[in-house]
Amino acid sequence: MYDLIIIGAGPAGITASVYAARKKMNLLVITKDIGGQAARSADIENYTGYQFISGPELATKFQEHMKKYGIALKEDEEVIEVDRINDSITVKTNEGADEAKTAIIASGKKSRELGVPGEKEFKNRGLTYCATCDGPLFTAKDVAVIGGGNSALDATLQLIKIAKQVYIINLTPALSGDAVMREKIEHAKNVTIFNNARVTNIMGDKFVTGIKIDKSGKTELLNVQGVFVEIGLIPNSEFAKKVEKNQFGEIKVDCFNQTNIPGVFAAGDVTDVPGKQIIIAAGEGAKAALGTFRYLAQTK
Amino acid sequence: MYDLIIIGAGPAGITASVYAARKKMNLLVITKDIGGQAARSADIENYTGYQFISGPELATKFQEHMKKYGIALKEDEEVIEVDRINDSITVKTNEGADEAKTAIIASGKKSRELGVPGEKEFKNRGLTYCATCDGPLFTAKDVAVIGGGNSALDATLQLIKIAKQVYIINLTPALSGDAVMREKIEHAKNVTIFNNARVTNIMGDKFVTGIKIDKSGKTELLNVQGVFVEIGLIPNSEFAKKVEKNQFGEIKVDCFNQTNIPGVFAAGDVTDVPGKQIIIAAGEGAKAALGTFRYLAQTK
Repeated sequence: MYDLIIIGAGPAGITASVYAARKKMNLLVITKDIGGQAARSADIENYTGYQFISGPELATKFQEHMKKYGIALKEDEEVIEVDRINDSITVKTNEGADEAKTAIIASGKKSRELGVPGEKEFKNRGLTYCATCDGPLFTAKDVAVIGGGNSALDATLQLIKIAKQVYIINLTPALSGDAVMREKIEHAKNVTIFNNARVTNIMGDKFVTGIKIDKSGKTELLNVQGVFVEIGLIPNSEFAKKVEKNQFGEIKVDCFNQTNIPGVFAAGDVTDVPGKQIIIAAGEGAKAALGTFRYLAQTK
Repeated sequence: MYDLIIIGAGPAGITASVYAARKKMNLLVITKDIGGQAARSADIENYTGYQFISGPELATKFQEHMKKYGIALKEDEEVIEVDRINDSITVKTNEGADEAKTAIIASGKKSRELGVPGEKEFKNRGLTYCATCDGPLFTAKDVAVIGGGNSALDATLQLIKIAKQVYIINLTPALSGDAVMREKIEHAKNVTIFNNARVTNIMGDKFVTGIKIDKSGKTELLNVQGVFVEIGLIPNSEFAKKVEKNQFGEIKVDCFNQTNIPGVFAAGDVTDVPGKQIIIAAGEGAKAALGTFRYLAQTK
């Protein structure tokens, strides 16, 4: 029986683990991967203390920070259920089950899919959800970025340095996201922005060869070899069946990171806390860990 | 008329300023000093991404991060009032007044005083509230640390490397604070812990020569040349007269960092958010900045 099981090892889960380890809590981290969305970001300029760091580099620093404390870690396991039975929390994975007095759900978010014909077929055959991971495969090629928010802008900023031409397909009348990023994109010479536009088809043979878009009612065909889908994220919260969520599937937490289930806390992008940012997720992870510590002190 | 005035430049205020600057908000930071309590910490091991960094070093990195954005900054000014008049927020300082559409109070906390005879007299004559700043002045001397929480442990860990003998005077039956720090102190050879003990007098001539303590009803005299008062912090919130606070003087915020006054947000140690930690303050600062941005979008 652990004091605490942390589900997920992105900025929230890792920070929670560091805080719990420093409190000498008996601790297990279960996670599919390490680094979360941070590892999939390109250039990070707003993690205070690092004026500039790449996502993978910051994720590595986070991972090293966690590993310093020798925390028990189950990697590559997928959580399929979290439930409170009697006075303990059971976390079931595809490989077994563990029990703890408290849990922190910090399982983050995953990419939202377009849901258009060709998407599934050409996934990893030119269509991807991670510019940081796959961008370099498209050197000197033409690519489309689908989306207009920060994730799409981040992907675009990476791709303008790599690809020949970048098309942005944005559903709304103007790009959203940070002004700093928008300006950089507006100054780039190899970007074309399609506002009020929506992708209707991904086309190709063995690999992507183009996309069909609907721009204000007119259909256009763009020849591209790469498609980067950046239309937002959905929370990894399906396994938390009895935990209360909002309309977006985000886990509802109070100001103390508590869910509706006693002993079950949540932190980071999987929650309804506004602002999906690395520094916010890290802060929330620390709050959640201190919350479980207080909870144990008060219930033991 | 600014979009936003941030009061304070510790981890919360600086992170808020970076986020607001990246949103191209028209921004002013007013602060007494830069770095806040972080700058007064010694060894920081729980700011995720830095396995180890000194407080002054992290504070310098924060400051450089803010300065990169060329943010308008009024240093060495003391805020004496924040108030909403008509539709704008007025921030009065000892030198003038500025107006903005929104404000973030991130003014942090200051050291709590002992309130015993001799404290005022020997302040900066052997008695200090900052081990990081003044520790080196007590090389090979005998010193007392007053307190038993994380701040006192942090001060002790600095002083055992510098002073000849360190006495800890702790009001409660056992030290509190992180287990990692407690263990290091228990392994140190030049520390004596007085639990259930309270300081009643600071004594000296030109400088501190000793302290009187009451230990479970018995009076003892300890000869020391240095006294480090580490009995907690009180919020710098007096100037926010119309902002709602809790019994400790901490500014009450909702989960979106909003106070009871429309357009006035708060973040970091000055608020009632649990866990006074650098990573938490930084996350809260980011949340508050995004909150003011949303507030402006919705009210303009």
